[in-house]
Parts: sequence; C-alpha cells; structure tokens
Amino acid sequence: MTVDADLDALVRRPIRGLAPYAPGEQVAQCTKMNTNECAWGPAPAVQTVLADLTEDALRLYPQPMADDLRQVASEVFKVSPDRILAGNGSDDCLTILFRTHLQPGDQFACPWPTYSLYDTLAGLQDVEPLHIDYTDWRDGEWGLPTALATTGAPVTIVANPNNPSATLIATNELRRLANQVTGILVVDEAYVDFADAEIGNASMLAFLDDHPNLVVLRTFSKSYSLAGARLGLMFAHPRLIQHYVKVKDSYNVNVLTQLLGIAALRDRDYHRDLVANTLAERAFLEDQLAAFGWTWPTSRGNFLLCRVGEQARSLYLGLKDRGILVRFFDKPGLDSCLRISVGQRADNQALIAALRDLGA
Amino acid sequence: MTVDADLDALVRRPIRGLAPYAPGEQVAQCTKMNTNECAWGPAPAVQTVLADLTEDALRLYPQPMADDLRQVASEVFKVSPDRILAGNGSDDCLTILFRTHLQPGDQFACPWPTYSLYDTLAGLQDVEPLHIDYTDWRDGEWGLPTALATTGAPVTIVANPNNPSATLIATNELRRLANQVTGILVVDEAYVDFADAEIGNASMLAFLDDHPNLVVLRTFSKSYSLAGARLGLMFAHPRLIQHYVKVKDSYNVNVLTQLLGIAALRDRDYHRDLVANTLAERAFLEDQLAAFGWTWPTSRGNFLLCRVGEQARSLYLGLKDRGILVRFFDKPGLDSCLRISVGQRADNQALIAALRDLGA
Repeated sequence: MTVDADLDALVRRPIRGLAPYAPGEQVAQCTKMNTNECAWGPAPAVQTVLADLTEDALRLYPQPMADDLRQVASEVFKVSPDRILAGNGSDDCLTILFRTHLQPGDQFACPWPTYSLYDTLAGLQDVEPLHIDYTDWRDGEWGLPTALATTGAPVTIVANPNNPSATLIATNELRRLANQVTGILVVDEAYVDFADAEIGNASMLAFLDDHPNLVVLRTFSKSYSLAGARLGLMFAHPRLIQHYVKVKDSYNVNVLTQLLGIAALRDRDYHRDLVANTLAERAFLEDQLAAFGWTWPTSRGNFLLCRVGEQARSLYLGLKDRGILVRFFDKPGLDSCLRISVGQRADNQALIAALRDLGA
Repeated sequence: MTVDADLDALVRRPIRGLAPYAPGEQVAQCTKMNTNECAWGPAPAVQTVLADLTEDALRLYPQPMADDLRQVASEVFKVSPDRILAGNGSDDCLTILFRTHLQPGDQFACPWPTYSLYDTLAGLQDVEPLHIDYTDWRDGEWGLPTALATTGAPVTIVANPNNPSATLIATNELRRLANQVTGILVVDEAYVDFADAEIGNASMLAFLDDHPNLVVLRTFSKSYSLAGARLGLMFAHPRLIQHYVKVKDSYNVNVLTQLLGIAALRDRDYHRDLVANTLAERAFLEDQLAAFGWTWPTSRGNFLLCRVGEQARSLYLGLKDRGILVRFFDKPGLDSCLRISVGQRADNQALIAALRDLGA
C-alpha cells in the first residue's frame, strides 16, 4: 500500500471525516486573553514541589489512582475519596465519560451554545450531539431550556458557569434536571470557583449524595492557574467511579501534576486571592468596556462574551496585530461577539487602549 | 434512581463486564524489580528544567502538538516531525491507535503471550483480541508465528523486544510482516534501546518510509528513566498522524513532561550510559541467576522472564515479604515464571541473597 487513500481506508469511518478540535491559539509573546487561563501564576508552593522532586519520583511509575491527591481533594471538597477520579485535564475526564456511557449512534444533549469540545468528543465516539438553545441567550441571564429534561439522551452536559457565555444556572434548577433526566447529568464546573466566591452556593458538589446520576467536573486550569500541568477531577457515585477507572489510562496523571495539584489545593489563601483578584479585575474590565457601548451576559466566570457587532472579526484581527489575543468564534450567532479573558491590570489596560486605537 | 444496578444500566455493555487492567504493584519502600523501570534516575538536566520553569509555563496551556519536543525527537530519531506524535505515555498512543482504527466487533491480532494492556484496550473498544502463540516460546528465542500475516485484522501489534519475554524479532521479519498484513502493523519498541545498544539495527524506525502501514511506538519510561512523567512517541506516515491528531486529547502532554522529554533526549551520553549500565547489570544478574539452574528466553531488554517452576508463586510472595517486588503472572503458561527487572548492583545482590534465603 502506498497512497493516502489506502491509509484513509484503514481509519474507521467516523474518524475519517472528522474535523479536528481547534484549541485556542497559543502564540508566544502575546497578551493572552483568548483561552481563559488565570491571569496570575500558581501558588508559590508548586515551585517548591518541583525543586524537592526526587529522582525516584520521575524514575518510577506514578500512583495509578493519584491516591494522595484524592485524599487532599477529599478534604478540600468534602467528598469521600471513592467518589473522586483524577484526570489528565478535565478533557481526559470528559473522554472517559463519553467512552463509558455512549455507544455509536447514541445522542448526548447539551444546552447551546457551549464548550465546543463536547461535540468533538461526541464525533470521536460516533455519537450525535443534540443542541438545545439556551432561552433568551442574548439577554443578561441565559436560561436552561426545559426541553433538556426530556431528551432521553444517556448523557446531558451543562457547563456551569457556561462557556462561552460565563452565565450561571442556579443549583436548584440543575437538581431538578438531575431528577428529570433518565441518564447521566454532567455539570462541568471549570469556572465555578469564581461564581462561588461572588454569590456562593454555585456548585453541585454538595448534592452528589442526592443524585446518583450526577457527575461534577473540576479543573486546575482556571482558578488554580495550572493549565500547563493538565489536571482535572471528576466527582461521581462510587459505583460510576469504578467503571471510569476501567476506562482511564492506567497511569493517566503523571507524578509531577499529582504533586502540583496537592500543593495548589493546600494553599487555600493563595487560591482565594487568585479568585478575588480575578473578580476585581473583571469589574475593572467591565467598567472600561461599557464605555464602548458593548454588552455581555452576566458573567460569573473569569471572562466576558462581549457583543460587539459586525466589527467583531476585524477587531479580533486588529488586536492580534497588536499582540493581544482574544477569542473570536466564526459561528452563526457568535460571530458578532468576542470572548475576552480577564487579565492583570496592565493587560486589561493594554486591551482597552488597543480597542480605542482600533476605533471600537 | 438510587441503586447500583440502575447505574450499571447507564454504562455501555462492553465496559460493564470488563475487568480493569492491573498495573504492576507500586509499593513504597520496596526494591522494585516488577515493572521494568530503569534502575538509575533520569538525566541530571531534567532537574535543571524543573528549577528553571517559569510561572507562565504552568499558567498557560501547553503546546497542543508538543512542537519543540517533536523537533528534538526528529533530530534524535532521524524522522521528520510530521511523522511524530507525542502521547501521555505510550499507553495514550495505544489508546489513540485503538480508537482510530478499530470498530466494535473488529479483531486486533498479536503474538502471544505479550503485554496484557493491549487486551484491556481492546475490551474498551469492544474489539476481540486474536492471540497467536509465539513459536517455540519455551526456548531461547521466540519466533514470530507465520499465521500472524494472514489474520485480516485491521491492527496487528508486536512488542519488540516483547514483554514479558524480552525476546527480539529481527527487523527483516517484521518488514515482511508489514508487507503481508492488510492492516496497520504496530511495533511497540518500549525496550528497543537495550537491543539496539547490544546488537544494533533492532528498530523499525529506519523503515518507516518503506511501509506506510507501519506505526512505531517509543516510551520514555524505560531507557530514559521517566516513567513518572508519562511520555511516549508514536511514529507513522504523516497521513495517519493527521488522523491520530483528531483522536488525541487536545492538550494531551503537559508542559513539564514536554520539557523533561526534550532535556532527556538531548543528553545522548547520559542515555548511552543508562543503557550500558543496564546491560552490564543484566549480565551480572544472569550470571548469578544461572546458579539456581533457572533458564530464560534470550533477553534483549532490561528484564528476564525466569522459568523457576512450581515455586514461582511462593518465591514471589517470599520476596515480597522481604521487601523485593518481582512480577508474577497468574496465567496458564506463565505461572511457573517470574519476570525480574534489572536493578542496580545492590538491588540485584539483595535479590540473589533473598532467593538463596528462600531456598531457590
């Protein structure tokens, strides 16, 4: 066999035609306000961990189940260790969920628009996404569509706060949904720490006991500022965790990331400060952006989905020319928006100055 | 829903009944000779990398395709970067292969016995393993079964050197197999550096151009002594790599591991020493173990599959009591064997002393 077509024939059909997931641009030497990382670095303790690392820690295989990390996570999140699984980023946790619960031909349901990776993972598993529009998704709050409760899909995923809108659904609504769906309800709480700090009681973790079909995801890429290290946590009924363990790679989280996660979890004060600083800078950014006449859904995350109108694409390109990356989605309904991650004060000021310069 | 049976019903059938992969035991404070890690630590340069890490490296997402690492790997392995994909351990690479090429109901073929993870991954993908016994697998060399060429399986995997036997198949035989099979031939070269140093020309990497259906796997867990960091490389035709990119998690290798891999690859002298030391200690161990009257297939790896007879299990347990872990496989045909990883001199001496003490 010698040609591309022959090789394509060896690739299974659902993969063959799939478009790859396009991660947000990673450009060196840019002000990055496009992928919702934390604006400040991680807890200083993580550097200590790296300095103290033994040769044997690298030489030997890591703990397959990240037991020490799960123990610390158990204390911080008040969830027993047998309800916790660590992943190589929450992307890994999502892959485990898709592979555990969804057969080729199944549907998974989510309110729309949301994090587009879900659709990519569905494509890999030959599963059909069922998008149900958020209600009133051009207004301040985005409401959960009632039709989500009756899809019959084996898996329903709600990002809360949602990406790209940063809007929050109240836990009592999600609890109702957990009772209504016939399958698994996944609540992806990548950004929930920001909401929790601002208005409290934003997380579903407290309700795991009440809903055996509830899975909660957390990530260390946002409020813990460890996007580079890849760490996610999955919280679920112990019986489900037992199945997820079978699906995960046997050593899915490397030893460094396990240790970094422990160090980051233990410094509660630093974490609180990171979140508080982010909220303060978001307020500054909102104040400044309002001067352009822009609006955005009520943000409970570390980013804003700004409705900027027809100039969205040209502003995105103009900012990029000036070394500032924001997120532009080339999709109907979102192509008049820019998603902007909260930066440090200097980043935010540079953004505002560049936008003025571009005639926003 | 409230009970375990209800939750099980939400798990797809192939996963539901699956037994989890059992990684080799990881016991603290033991002499570990059970999972074929390197006996010495990784290149000192990897510690420098960790000390020099910037806050931003952890804060921001890593390179999705590990471009810098691929560039260095390209130079070391003399393979163009578009033929290289980095994985979160070679386990991740194997998962990508199974998901790309195999549909539920398909078969994958491998000579037997071999690395049992392949069967676990097959189970996850609802794929049936087709085991074809190595010829003469109780003698010095294990021969590749000719029936492997005509299975029609979309994927054939040969670990070379093989695990658990450490035996090597010559590249001309594997090239013939690559020409004969109608699907993908995966050669898992986890241990090939030891064979290459001893007898040369053991790797299939030089023949990638000749065989578009050939995939070669390498790991950093053995000869680079980075099992804790989780890093594998997959080498294949650029057209196949393009499909694998779609199947991998978007940020599958964390920033630390990418940097460690680069540092480890760059120190060629240290790597050569690690391999040479391992071969020297293997010779010592073989000399000592021969005194027990044991035999083993000709080892081209950093371990020996010792045929010890009926006392295999009791010796394994006795060694464990004495703080020395070796690998015992509770499987027909292998349950009279112990797989022993080469240790440092003191480890090897401790093993021999303990075996004498146990009346081996």
